[in-house]
Amino acid sequence: MAKIAIMGYGTVGAGVFKTLTMNREAIARRTGEEIEIKYVLDLREFPGDPAEEVLTHEFTDILNDPEVSVVVETMGGLKPAYMFTKELLAAGKNVCTSNKELVAEHGVELREVAREHSVNYLFEASCGGGIPIIRVLNTSLTAEEIEEVTGILNGTTNYILTSMADEGKEFATALKEAQEKGYAELHPEADVEGWDACRKIAILSSLGYGRHISYKDVPTEGITHVDKTDIEYAKALGCRIKLLATSRRDDNGTWALVAPMMIGRENPLTAVDGVMNAVMVKGNAVGTTMYYGSGAGSLPTASAVVGDIIDCVKHRRTTIRTDYSAEPLMLIPVDEVTRPFFVRMRGDEGAARAAFGEISSVTRLPGKEDEFGFLTAMMPEKEFKALLAGTDQVISWYRRGKNEEAEEA
Amino acid sequence: MAKIAIMGYGTVGAGVFKTLTMNREAIARRTGEEIEIKYVLDLREFPGDPAEEVLTHEFTDILNDPEVSVVVETMGGLKPAYMFTKELLAAGKNVCTSNKELVAEHGVELREVAREHSVNYLFEASCGGGIPIIRVLNTSLTAEEIEEVTGILNGTTNYILTSMADEGKEFATALKEAQEKGYAELHPEADVEGWDACRKIAILSSLGYGRHISYKDVPTEGITHVDKTDIEYAKALGCRIKLLATSRRDDNGTWALVAPMMIGRENPLTAVDGVMNAVMVKGNAVGTTMYYGSGAGSLPTASAVVGDIIDCVKHRRTTIRTDYSAEPLMLIPVDEVTRPFFVRMRGDEGAARAAFGEISSVTRLPGKEDEFGFLTAMMPEKEFKALLAGTDQVISWYRRGKNEEAEEA
Repeated sequence: MAKIAIMGYGTVGAGVFKTLTMNREAIARRTGEEIEIKYVLDLREFPGDPAEEVLTHEFTDILNDPEVSVVVETMGGLKPAYMFTKELLAAGKNVCTSNKELVAEHGVELREVAREHSVNYLFEASCGGGIPIIRVLNTSLTAEEIEEVTGILNGTTNYILTSMADEGKEFATALKEAQEKGYAELHPEADVEGWDACRKIAILSSLGYGRHISYKDVPTEGITHVDKTDIEYAKALGCRIKLLATSRRDDNGTWALVAPMMIGRENPLTAVDGVMNAVMVKGNAVGTTMYYGSGAGSLPTASAVVGDIIDCVKHRRTTIRTDYSAEPLMLIPVDEVTRPFFVRMRGDEGAARAAFGEISSVTRLPGKEDEFGFLTAMMPEKEFKALLAGTDQVISWYRRGKNEEAEEA
Repeated sequence: MAKIAIMGYGTVGAGVFKTLTMNREAIARRTGEEIEIKYVLDLREFPGDPAEEVLTHEFTDILNDPEVSVVVETMGGLKPAYMFTKELLAAGKNVCTSNKELVAEHGVELREVAREHSVNYLFEASCGGGIPIIRVLNTSLTAEEIEEVTGILNGTTNYILTSMADEGKEFATALKEAQEKGYAELHPEADVEGWDACRKIAILSSLGYGRHISYKDVPTEGITHVDKTDIEYAKALGCRIKLLATSRRDDNGTWALVAPMMIGRENPLTAVDGVMNAVMVKGNAVGTTMYYGSGAGSLPTASAVVGDIIDCVKHRRTTIRTDYSAEPLMLIPVDEVTRPFFVRMRGDEGAARAAFGEISSVTRLPGKEDEFGFLTAMMPEKEFKALLAGTDQVISWYRRGKNEEAEEA
């Protein structure tokens, strides 16, 4: 019998409680022992809720109970989650979390504390909700030199972009509807400005390449400037605009970026719609792989947390080996990255050629006689931005995100 | 330093050799020690090949060498792979394999022998090539009651069906071209009759539901009868015809099936084209997840084998816990399964209604005035087959494979 505690009885914490109860038998079979929830820590009361019986308001009840070997941190935020986690690990307790802010900010240190005390700090639920991407990177793709990690890692923005594409809505309308349906928060900045996806790609890239990438080093653009005409151009080109969180490593170095990009059928992420998330991982032996599922939601996220609990119970006093050194990985500027760019501009094709050189896939939309869209040749981003500065006719532009196969084709 | 042997230096075996060499550094970092290939066993000679130096023709060199802790079995077939594997496990050596025939036929027994000797028999490469689906089922989706496993698990047939759909080819032409390109074997029965996919879904379903499903119990239909007009109907309905290997569990029991089915945009497998493979797994907490990648090929398959080698080195003398009991899981007949069916028939809609009751999505193709296609209402397969027996106007029919979300919508 393993005894655990859940800190924070919100959406995810309650999902963990429910999953452990609902699937008790299957979980015991896979773990080799029963898992009992001994405490739920929350400041609030939950009269009539099944958690009521095990509710405590005192963190020290958990910290000082030698029976508790695994603690779930689903409080979110940095305070007091950071100090609680650190004290628990130092006390020889395993911690599983869905808290991506904390992992992105203090994950390196907390993993080190865990190692010093022969326990684990696991965070499968911090990226991609129910998609088991972290365990895949840590324990499955171990034969690979990882070359690329690219994901649709934020369900809110993917929902908004999907409803703009499928129903022709403007950003503001789509955001408002997402808020009404509970898919976007009242203060949606963390999602729509790309900050959430940024933390996640920093975590996944660090695991993929084996060295620490700070989320603060990842250039991040949101989707607030995407308008429905941009999306119409994308569709006319057989593409979609998706908020991609991406990183790539080659002989020149490693770069990372969060930005809305135009991707086509050659990219398996193009078909990922609505609140679903997906992560594409490329390795030098396995090639392109992709992992798809619910990126948020109570039970999918809880499923990932419970998977971590089970792993902790199986490895109560052993730190599971992962390839993630605390040594920082310095990123090269995205300015060095070569690709084609989509440009939407006023004027004629002659002006476009004068400004950007060779152009292709020239597209005009019905009812938009005074503008058009096209793709530039492959060029480094700094070259593109220099050309961009030389004209005032550009309405908007997007990076054309291609995968290797498409570039080679 | 871990010393290993590779038995069978064909496509996959040579890929394992190459991957271990090419990614030596990353692999050592993740494993915690170097991996050295001490033997390659093959009846042939390989003059000038890097394997030449470690080549042996004697199985006993490997069996009797106490330094060898992990052995790769990439020989394929049952003889002598079965006896070799059994002897190696009994001698306390871990075995990793890509041999799906052997896993499907004797996996239960070999896993038992491995457990008795505190070693591992791992077979990530046996299903879905480079897709890490087995480790996902064993170690990630551990919080779930698995409700469905459905995959496109055979690259040859998916390549053929994709080229029929994209280029309007007949089956025989598409098969011939696949053979010329090396995507299909000269004797393609194991692929085109569905036998390969059948073995894989039996393995994956056993892992998902935790009890042994014999591949002999899985009703299996191939794609040799699919013709290009069937595919045109599918396209007209916004669907594709894919060879699905599927199993599902609910309160009535568990069923499994390999057959070409008609699936639409609601199913993430619809976008999986060419030689790519994908597996969709549904759990009662996480919902729908999908795993996508190269289902075959030297390096992708080798990547999965090497991932297993690394896991074995990390767990040299410990059997990794999995939820897969040897107790057989009896399947319920597919006849009990309720769904809509696509029917292509001669005559008029009145005859169709007389034969099948309520019909929908009636579709006529240009130039095919004497026939049409439609969907039946949801009905148990046995009921559909009874109705089918009552008319001689049906040209072809397919199961309409839907996922839960679509059914509920």
